[in-house]
Formats: sequence, structure tokens, C-alpha cells
Amino acid sequence: MEGDGKTVLLITGNAGKYREAARIAEGYGIGVKMLDYPKIEIQSNSNEHVSMVAALLAYSHLGAPLVVEDSGIFINALNGFPGVLAHFIKGGIGIEGVLKLMEGKKDRSAFFKAAVSYVDNDAVKCFTGICRGSISHKEIGEPEESLPFDSVFMPEGSKVTFAEMGVDEKSRYSHRAEAFKKLFAYLKEDRS
Amino acid sequence: MEGDGKTVLLITGNAGKYREAARIAEGYGIGVKMLDYPKIEIQSNSNEHVSMVAALLAYSHLGAPLVVEDSGIFINALNGFPGVLAHFIKGGIGIEGVLKLMEGKKDRSAFFKAAVSYVDNDAVKCFTGICRGSISHKEIGEPEESLPFDSVFMPEGSKVTFAEMGVDEKSRYSHRAEAFKKLFAYLKEDRS
Repeated sequence: MEGDGKTVLLITGNAGKYREAARIAEGYGIGVKMLDYPKIEIQSNSNEHVSMVAALLAYSHLGAPLVVEDSGIFINALNGFPGVLAHFIKGGIGIEGVLKLMEGKKDRSAFFKAAVSYVDNDAVKCFTGICRGSISHKEIGEPEESLPFDSVFMPEGSKVTFAEMGVDEKSRYSHRAEAFKKLFAYLKEDRS
Repeated sequence: MEGDGKTVLLITGNAGKYREAARIAEGYGIGVKMLDYPKIEIQSNSNEHVSMVAALLAYSHLGAPLVVEDSGIFINALNGFPGVLAHFIKGGIGIEGVLKLMEGKKDRSAFFKAAVSYVDNDAVKCFTGICRGSISHKEIGEPEESLPFDSVFMPEGSKVTFAEMGVDEKSRYSHRAEAFKKLFAYLKEDRS
């Protein structure tokens, strides 16, 4: 890492994501600063690719080591739909449209994936986390506005949806936490 | 226009699009050169925005006046889905998924939109063309591989789908031709 080697910028406008990352980073002796800066997201069906390009483009403006996270949900019976583009579902066909597409599908398996990319002057490294589970037959619970799929996703080993869980319970399954842990372990190693 | 004022670069890997643009440009005394160069497409629900950003980014590398086209299909009963991201449908839910979402919908209206952006040293200008029509109840005709929605889109005033039409008939309805005509009229005006 460049600079003081103790703090990394996280490009996000989402305070919840920032808090989750900062709490994990603490355990590795690393500080996180939130920066609400434009994240240029390209069209792609790979979260890894989206987050690496966004990180590189932000770095080219900011010139400081930084982190960009991107996530999606992949439904196996729908060939991975909606994937990276999950955040376009809400203003479009909605969760009810996704449930309609799932009518009559025996395989209801799906997974959330988070990709966390770190860029500095020499490289871009991407770390991923996955949470496997299944799509429920109807919406259950009250999801946060920005996380509509939480009301239809039940992680493996749970009988409730993400939307029914408290923060602590949900974080045990978190694809995002898994990716951040890999990143911070890498950064700790890299500096020692 | 910069340079000789007679030729403009079209960034595309699609020879069909190039031929369509070149034929129209001829009528305005303008030449078109095809360049198969990376088109950086951002996530957005606006074709205008996608094509303007792609044009600006290509210009920043190439430094020559150029044109980028981007198009989508917007289904009204699905709140504009799939829109700009139509080209992700094919590997995902497919046209059969779109028809399933349309089951029971009385309003089957939809429109294709093309956005054509021109960038030079001073400005980016975007020109659009729209073709209104409706979504058929099943796939009819054999569409080109890259144009899967042609088999379910019937333009207003026609009883057949785009996939059933020959090139000349389809071009009478073409959203893309409309946008290119506006561009070439602007470029002709600009130079005189």
C-alpha cells in the first residue's frame, strides 16, 4: 500500500456498506475512509469486471489506493439472471416479475456474489465472496429499499429470508463480508 | 467537423450497422469509415447516456471526430424493461422469459430506440430515433442472432414482425435510420 499504509479509501455512497467494511477492517488493523465519488459501472455480466474497471477509473482520477465493491444475484434456473444488473430490476419488472419467471421451476437455487477490487499504483486485485441459497415462493419480510432481493433469498442453512434477519445474523452469511475479509487479509500480508 | 470535413468514424464491430449508416450518409455527401474499436458501455437506463459516454471515451483515445450508436427496446407494461440492457436478455431469461412476463398484460405496446452520438473537439451531440409497435404473443420469423427481439416486435402499421421483413421493408421503420438521418443533416448543416 501507498501512503501511510494504514488506511484505504472505499468508494461508496452507501453508509451501511461502509460500516460493514470498517468493522471488518478493524480486526486486521486497517482503517477505512468512505468517499462518495462517482463509480463508473460498465455493462458486463461479471461483478469482478465491473468492480475492477470502476476501481481503475476512480484511481486514474484520485491517484490514491482505493476499493470498489460490486455485487449481484444469480438465479440458476434463469441462466444467472439478473446477475450484475440486479439493481435494474426494481424500476423494471420488480421482484414480482422475477417470481413470475420462477413459476414452475423446480431448481430455485441462487447465489449472491460480491466482488471487491483494490487498486494501487501497481495492480488491481479482485476478491470475491459468495452466499448460496434459494429463491422463496413469495416475498417475506421488509427489505431495505436498496436490497429488494433480500425478501426472496434464503441462504443455505436458514429457514428465513435475508429480510427477516437482524444485521448480526445476516452478516454471518454475508458474501460482502467474505470478500472484504479476503481483501483485508491480503492488505495486512502485503504490508508486513 | 475537424479533418477533411467529409468523413466520420463509426465505432462498431457490426458490419450491418455500418452499411446502413454509410448508405444514409451518402445522401448527405458524407463518408463513413467503420472502426471496430472497444466501446465502453456504462450501466444506465438511457441509451443517450450510454452512447454519449462511449463516444467521449473513444474520442479521448482516438482524438478524431466519431460516432457511437446504442439502442434498446422498452416495453411499457414492464416499466420499460429490458430497455438499454436488452442485449443481456439472450443469455439470461431469453425471449421466452419476456413472453412469460407479458402473459396477461393487455398493454403490449413497446418501442425500439436508437441513440447516435457524435463527438468532436468541442461538443457531444446525441440524436435519437424511435420505432413504436407492439410485442407479439409468440416468436414469429427467424431473427438475426444479434437481434432476438425482432421476432416478437411488430411496428405500428405492420402486421408482421421485424424478423419477417426484408432489409428494405424493415429500414422504412428503422429507429436507427431515423437517428442517423438527424446526425447527417446536422453534420451537413454544420459544415456549410
